[in-house]
Amino acid sequence: MTTIATTDTPRKVTLVDTTLRDGMSSVSHQFTTQNVADIARGLDQAGIPTIEVAHGIGLGASSIQYGFAAATDPEYVRAAVDAVDNADIAALYVPGIATLAELQRAIDAGIKTVRVAVHCTEADCGQQPIEWAKEHGLNVMTFLMMSHKLDPEPLAEQAAKLDSYGADVVYVVDSAGAMVPQHAGERVAALRQAISADIGFHAHNNLGVGIANALAAAENGATFIDGSLRGLGASAGNAQTEVLAAAFERAGWDTGVDLFTLIDTAEHVVAPLMKEPQIVDETALILGYAGVYSTFFHPTKRAAKKFGVSTRDILIELGRRGVIGGQEDMIIDVASELAGRTYELPARAGV
Amino acid sequence: MTTIATTDTPRKVTLVDTTLRDGMSSVSHQFTTQNVADIARGLDQAGIPTIEVAHGIGLGASSIQYGFAAATDPEYVRAAVDAVDNADIAALYVPGIATLAELQRAIDAGIKTVRVAVHCTEADCGQQPIEWAKEHGLNVMTFLMMSHKLDPEPLAEQAAKLDSYGADVVYVVDSAGAMVPQHAGERVAALRQAISADIGFHAHNNLGVGIANALAAAENGATFIDGSLRGLGASAGNAQTEVLAAAFERAGWDTGVDLFTLIDTAEHVVAPLMKEPQIVDETALILGYAGVYSTFFHPTKRAAKKFGVSTRDILIELGRRGVIGGQEDMIIDVASELAGRTYELPARAGV
Repeated sequence: MTTIATTDTPRKVTLVDTTLRDGMSSVSHQFTTQNVADIARGLDQAGIPTIEVAHGIGLGASSIQYGFAAATDPEYVRAAVDAVDNADIAALYVPGIATLAELQRAIDAGIKTVRVAVHCTEADCGQQPIEWAKEHGLNVMTFLMMSHKLDPEPLAEQAAKLDSYGADVVYVVDSAGAMVPQHAGERVAALRQAISADIGFHAHNNLGVGIANALAAAENGATFIDGSLRGLGASAGNAQTEVLAAAFERAGWDTGVDLFTLIDTAEHVVAPLMKEPQIVDETALILGYAGVYSTFFHPTKRAAKKFGVSTRDILIELGRRGVIGGQEDMIIDVASELAGRTYELPARAGV
Repeated sequence: MTTIATTDTPRKVTLVDTTLRDGMSSVSHQFTTQNVADIARGLDQAGIPTIEVAHGIGLGASSIQYGFAAATDPEYVRAAVDAVDNADIAALYVPGIATLAELQRAIDAGIKTVRVAVHCTEADCGQQPIEWAKEHGLNVMTFLMMSHKLDPEPLAEQAAKLDSYGADVVYVVDSAGAMVPQHAGERVAALRQAISADIGFHAHNNLGVGIANALAAAENGATFIDGSLRGLGASAGNAQTEVLAAAFERAGWDTGVDLFTLIDTAEHVVAPLMKEPQIVDETALILGYAGVYSTFFHPTKRAAKKFGVSTRDILIELGRRGVIGGQEDMIIDVASELAGRTYELPARAGV
């Protein structure tokens, strides 16, 4: 219906949806199992083949540190498994947060895919869970988090390790939303040269280019693209699944999904559950600009309020210090320093 | 603060802000002159050199057809002119809506730039106002609206006409937000081969790629990039000015603006005035997917409600019929047809 031509033989790309995992961060991990079933059903009916489910930080993260979820990971997984006809249900495994016992319980609940996420310089940490998961018959996707922090060549070296452990897919993950399309494209291109596993891309939208980074990733060889309905996800959110579907079609790609079923699920199931829209506000933009992990979004806002300093100053300093996921305690350190006072540790008797 | 390298000698691009013109569509043209002054002051202090002001559809559009604005165009222009130290104030001129008398009044109020907007196949309509404006000492930017509807070569032929009339800048305008980066890039590249005037790009974000389309336009030779704070603008909104500034910097471009002053103005001046966030909801997405003019957003929502049909069905049919800006009456025609009933025209006596 436009005069923009698409290619005659569209190239194929697979959309993976993380509304029910990364999106959990935007609802403080409070989706009910009924919400999970409703959203998973819509995604399945739209033809999304892999649906990631459970706590926003992955298996085993429901805690005082990362926030308690409204249900257990196995409960979430089972709700999704029971709701779908065709889709695989996947769970996120971050070594150091999740344990193999929790992964076993997720398998018992019905996952067929695990997504093992490591910081981009620490591929070694993925070896044990990847090998264990392959031995237990799982499809294994792997994440190189904060991939903007490595140049393409050293990133590809880390990817080669994950490949050697048996990963089926290695994702370039822009956890901070710090990339523009050229950065996404050149990283994926380097991986494409270095490994035989499939390549994925996971975007955050802090610089407003999440969808376009995914397009650039696909142009350079990525065949798995993450998204979430309405963009639900940490800080500025993810690439918006239903918009990915439309934009990839317009760019000449075949995603194999039903666009209008995705839109219906986004508009009538997900949107009414959202506490706030996924927009690029000051904090989200500075996160991407400074290259800070997206899940620092809410803790930074809280620390700014507590210490009477600006989120901007905290994030710029955290970016300067090169903090990574798992170092959330640094937020308090930096906020208290900026406020000109020492953070008072709880008193310890006899020390 | 990230390891992503930028080039040593950044290329230059000029940001033009349309929060106070295209953004007017998102607030039903109800900004007060005080709002205009506050926003223009922030943009000016951030170093934005050109600020577009007045009714969302341009000079002379305050009417029952397009909605009445809270102030007259000359009042808006004067409020902005009085608030800035350095920026040029610009006004939009759509032949058929605006008249030269109104343009003269805008000059009297202090504009230094006019932006003459024509449908992409109708460059001829720009000749009279462009030549008149040049004779009256204005800087003349020109818009090829709905540029997605022409392939690159015929679009460049239309651009050559605007160039021959004396336009200083010719914009590729993605009025429907229907382009992905390759479409934006190839259109700008065709213009760059065909004309000597500078080239601009005006994005809408319906497919989530407004910022990336602007980047692709710049990579192919565009040197003027439109944006609006918080993305304020018709349907999904424009490329978000403060995000453009951050993304262009990360991509190795020099915009010459102060990012944090832009962010402060977006966060503390514009955001509190917004009635709703600029997101890609169902209607906005289908507008881009179907290639329908962004300003059809609210009238389509109203018609869908009135006739009990879906916005999706209306927009897909409007896209199929190839409607363009100014054909808003077709929305009612299509909605009533889809509802299975003839729209009853007001009775005319004696006919």
